Amino acid sequence: MPSTGTLQPLGMDEVRINGGHWSKRQTVNAEGTIQHCLHWLEALGWTANFDRAAEGKEFERTGPQFSDSEVYKLAEAMAWEIGRTGDAGLEARFVKLTARISAAQHEDGYLNTAYGNPGQPPRYSDLEWGHELYCFGHLLQAAVARLRNHGEDAFTAIARRAADHVCNVFGPGGDERICGHAEIEVALAEFGRATGEARYLEQARLFIERHGRKTLPEKGVFYQDDVPVREAEVLRGHAVRALYLASGAIDVAIEAGDADLLDAVRGQWDRAVARRTHLTGGMGSQYADEAFGRDFALNPAEAYSESCAGVAAVMTAWRLLLATGDTRHGDMIERIAWNVLSGAVDPDGKSFFYANPLHQVTADPEPPRDGALPHLSAGGRRGHWFEVSCCPTNLARTFAQFAAYIATADDRGVQLHQYAPAAIDTVVAGSRFALTMTTAYPDDGTVIVRVEANDGGERTVSFRVPHWAEGATVTSPDGTARPAAAGELADVTAAFAHGDEIRLDLPLAPRWTYPDPRIDGLRGCAAVERGPEVWCVESVDLPEGADFADLAVDTTAPLTVRDGRVKVRGRINDRAAEWPYGTAAPRPEGEPVEISLVPFRSRDTRGAAAMRVWMPIS
Amino acid sequence: MPSTGTLQPLGMDEVRINGGHWSKRQTVNAEGTIQHCLHWLEALGWTANFDRAAEGKEFERTGPQFSDSEVYKLAEAMAWEIGRTGDAGLEARFVKLTARISAAQHEDGYLNTAYGNPGQPPRYSDLEWGHELYCFGHLLQAAVARLRNHGEDAFTAIARRAADHVCNVFGPGGDERICGHAEIEVALAEFGRATGEARYLEQARLFIERHGRKTLPEKGVFYQDDVPVREAEVLRGHAVRALYLASGAIDVAIEAGDADLLDAVRGQWDRAVARRTHLTGGMGSQYADEAFGRDFALNPAEAYSESCAGVAAVMTAWRLLLATGDTRHGDMIERIAWNVLSGAVDPDGKSFFYANPLHQVTADPEPPRDGALPHLSAGGRRGHWFEVSCCPTNLARTFAQFAAYIATADDRGVQLHQYAPAAIDTVVAGSRFALTMTTAYPDDGTVIVRVEANDGGERTVSFRVPHWAEGATVTSPDGTARPAAAGELADVTAAFAHGDEIRLDLPLAPRWTYPDPRIDGLRGCAAVERGPEVWCVESVDLPEGADFADLAVDTTAPLTVRDGRVKVRGRINDRAAEWPYGTAAPRPEGEPVEISLVPFRSRDTRGAAAMRVWMPIS
Repeated sequence: MPSTGTLQPLGMDEVRINGGHWSKRQTVNAEGTIQHCLHWLEALGWTANFDRAAEGKEFERTGPQFSDSEVYKLAEAMAWEIGRTGDAGLEARFVKLTARISAAQHEDGYLNTAYGNPGQPPRYSDLEWGHELYCFGHLLQAAVARLRNHGEDAFTAIARRAADHVCNVFGPGGDERICGHAEIEVALAEFGRATGEARYLEQARLFIERHGRKTLPEKGVFYQDDVPVREAEVLRGHAVRALYLASGAIDVAIEAGDADLLDAVRGQWDRAVARRTHLTGGMGSQYADEAFGRDFALNPAEAYSESCAGVAAVMTAWRLLLATGDTRHGDMIERIAWNVLSGAVDPDGKSFFYANPLHQVTADPEPPRDGALPHLSAGGRRGHWFEVSCCPTNLARTFAQFAAYIATADDRGVQLHQYAPAAIDTVVAGSRFALTMTTAYPDDGTVIVRVEANDGGERTVSFRVPHWAEGATVTSPDGTARPAAAGELADVTAAFAHGDEIRLDLPLAPRWTYPDPRIDGLRGCAAVERGPEVWCVESVDLPEGADFADLAVDTTAPLTVRDGRVKVRGRINDRAAEWPYGTAAPRPEGEPVEISLVPFRSRDTRGAAAMRVWMPIS
Repeated sequence: MPSTGTLQPLGMDEVRINGGHWSKRQTVNAEGTIQHCLHWLEALGWTANFDRAAEGKEFERTGPQFSDSEVYKLAEAMAWEIGRTGDAGLEARFVKLTARISAAQHEDGYLNTAYGNPGQPPRYSDLEWGHELYCFGHLLQAAVARLRNHGEDAFTAIARRAADHVCNVFGPGGDERICGHAEIEVALAEFGRATGEARYLEQARLFIERHGRKTLPEKGVFYQDDVPVREAEVLRGHAVRALYLASGAIDVAIEAGDADLLDAVRGQWDRAVARRTHLTGGMGSQYADEAFGRDFALNPAEAYSESCAGVAAVMTAWRLLLATGDTRHGDMIERIAWNVLSGAVDPDGKSFFYANPLHQVTADPEPPRDGALPHLSAGGRRGHWFEVSCCPTNLARTFAQFAAYIATADDRGVQLHQYAPAAIDTVVAGSRFALTMTTAYPDDGTVIVRVEANDGGERTVSFRVPHWAEGATVTSPDGTARPAAAGELADVTAAFAHGDEIRLDLPLAPRWTYPDPRIDGLRGCAAVERGPEVWCVESVDLPEGADFADLAVDTTAPLTVRDGRVKVRGRINDRAAEWPYGTAAPRPEGEPVEISLVPFRSRDTRGAAAMRVWMPIS
């Protein structure tokens, strides 16, 4: 539990998703993604690296230097999933994996299969690229998941030994460098909170404060070592690094009651949201360095928008939501979850987008299923595994714990941030307060909350009303409906009794969205959104023979929904010119057509297709 | 002289520029650029590499592996300049340089300071990246310049020995590979034509036909080894390589009367012009690989548009103009010459753009004058020299020979392709025909051609009427004016007498230009052109405190010219938003302003400035 902050998260036993999109996502995650990752980590020898290291002899290591972190992220996903379903088979695999990891841990708590073992470079000899502290961070986050879903065990004991080791080496008077990939900061803060060990929180604070002191050789901005965290004005450099660091800084700020640090990170986030974020919520706009680009450099075809940055941005937004209670952060979690995260995995949970550009210019073949490991999702198709395969396990751990993002509590009641069929059973001001949420959102805008138990008196149920939801209404148990302001929490307060129903109605008509005119890459285009979902057009939905580049849409024609598809009106303007610049402004010429869109998350499920979110206006 | 083709080029003694922009450019080229290059080549030891190689012992070489070509390109510039002015000092330096180069040539004609000398890799051990044949190519082109401006001498003797060596090694039955950087093809064709040696032309043909046979290890498209030249559909891969190769293929096609090959290259060019060329005529739209990008991928801020690709594109367009007589090719030479080439050099001729993007987002400081050699022109500022310094010498040789592009002849008369004060004194159908051209173009649209001598009978003077010149008129010596169709040659035929004047009037009001709607990077923008010149806005011309990204222009307001500056009307729309996407289409909000533009070629002459050619429409 955070020690300060506006809202309190719920325990994993207090909230459960029991239907709809996210339930299906969690099932696919368990049956598809987690099993898929277990297979690949074993097949590639990334798990076996621990067995080899445990033997204490020289060995030929496989995988990138940070592959241990993939094993830890998968362990974290397993821990959350075991908590969610109590899956005994998965629990057995977790225990077995624990033993293999434990065997490779050194006497003093050090643990890494790429450094410090016979024949390998010494410990901490390459903090810039070695990722040792980064790997420890993911070990600690997995241990947090285990603590929250199970309690102390052999796995959390590994993590305690590792955390103590890190504090011994990097504590006051020790090595004063940082890791080239932020992660240890947020992990130590979380682990300190979960274990109650102040030493870990203090170590997290030390690492946060050491950023910007240039203890690493090069590329300061890339790993946020250019200026101290509390002096930076915007999120910058490698997006995942920046967002993990921001998440850790918020945790430290909350625990230390450090309002200045919190304000600094909030300002960085606000500016990144206003100027460096794609419509999908995707962050990290440029391929070069997988980094935040400059303000308003948001080219849809060149959008990197890494899946892992989506995971990291949800972590950051969640912390800001808890700290401030501001619905904008819940909006952003929703936007990223529906568009970046849900779309990054295929319906079977076995292939993944690494980058999530908003415009796929060419229709490319599917990448090979086996053998070859592309560095990234190539040609706009999901891939089964990657050379640097950070995204699959990162997505797995996020989906497994997704129930945690549904609701929070405070002394007055419960706040609902994400809308999904769910059961909430918590304690408010010392008394049980249990709710069930029923909804077909976002296909339908009605959310019904039924009070299952209220052992206390007057309670408040608060609904996040998204900023796009102009015209939303909330209905009290007595049937009184009233407008609910977009971008605010809509409160319903009553001495609720069992069976009381509260209702939120959100407007879900599809809407045209236009970009800030300072975004060069989007000028003259519009996109379609419906509720939290961004929609896109795929070339397979164009009339036979039409060139995808020739499509222009008519934003004055009404958007309609038919058979679950949003329909837009447009024209296919086939042009041939010797010189592509002329004295007449382009005019629509082609025959009017109606085009069906698909949600961005559902792209690339019908074979090779070009795709675009931002459509030229006719 | 090409043996077939529609138009014939003039000799260097037949045409002379004697005023205006191009005369000034040639003076600056002689007094600034050529001297500057002589200094740098000496200072960096790139010339001294020849002295060291001549000693026949191991030595520590300086510069990139292809730095010999810089010495040859500068020699070519000197040869043209000596022909233009007869500068005795330059002639002495040329003779001295010849001796230094000659001393490094091996017995069998081989000559390279990076390969084949003691301690160096063997000859032709890295055709992919070694640039040996590329260097020979530039040696031969320099020799062509010497032959055309002086005649046979010690320099051309070096070239003959080198060309013979290349034919001996790579001729029929010999090494069948190509060079990773096309250049030898066009150079052998030119040298064969200049010397009358059929063997060189045949060797050029062999190299052309060997492209696409994949004799090099990797990256086939990059150096046009993916498909045979006559099967390719568009210019692709590294832009300079592609255009040098195309130029060589046209030469071979013309000499061999190979209409299929000519048609193939013409088709590739036409498609590249229609889909892969910037408004400035800049080719090679992407930084990655300095290459032609995909169709309509013409982002102005990411435009590479290398200066050398401008040089190469003029070479290609010139050959197509001679082959076909089509004014579009003269238009393209003019567009590239005014916008890419003239703008690539500063007014002193001592700093250079390597890349020529059409949008400079940030206002960056000037790069250092000495010492550090940036790889490219950094941050949108001209640089004094580069690590890979191909552009300065390439520009120097092009400006020095620019008179050659002014006019051509055929059996009927003279065709004027570029408008500049010039004297033309040639032979048409066996009789002297001499003209002077007077004009202040493009500041003024009137071109007056006075007949100085006509020893024959009826002659035709033809004017290229640019495709943008709607409303042009041509006036015969008798004072009769008639419309001259844009995009065609306007003929005036008469039995001209001494003193007769013909007049062309071109409309030079500034005009708005709009992009093809398939170009994602330009949608919603317009540019200003005046005559052949593209104009741009620089941030230093905005009102104090205005953010460059907030400028939008009103294309419905008239464009005006005042004090030599084109003026546009627009607004500065200062916006602040928490989220840069909204349901309302952007509307102009700011106060109306008038902004002065500058020609694109004159950018970056008033200190740090952001710049853009394509301006968002209000």
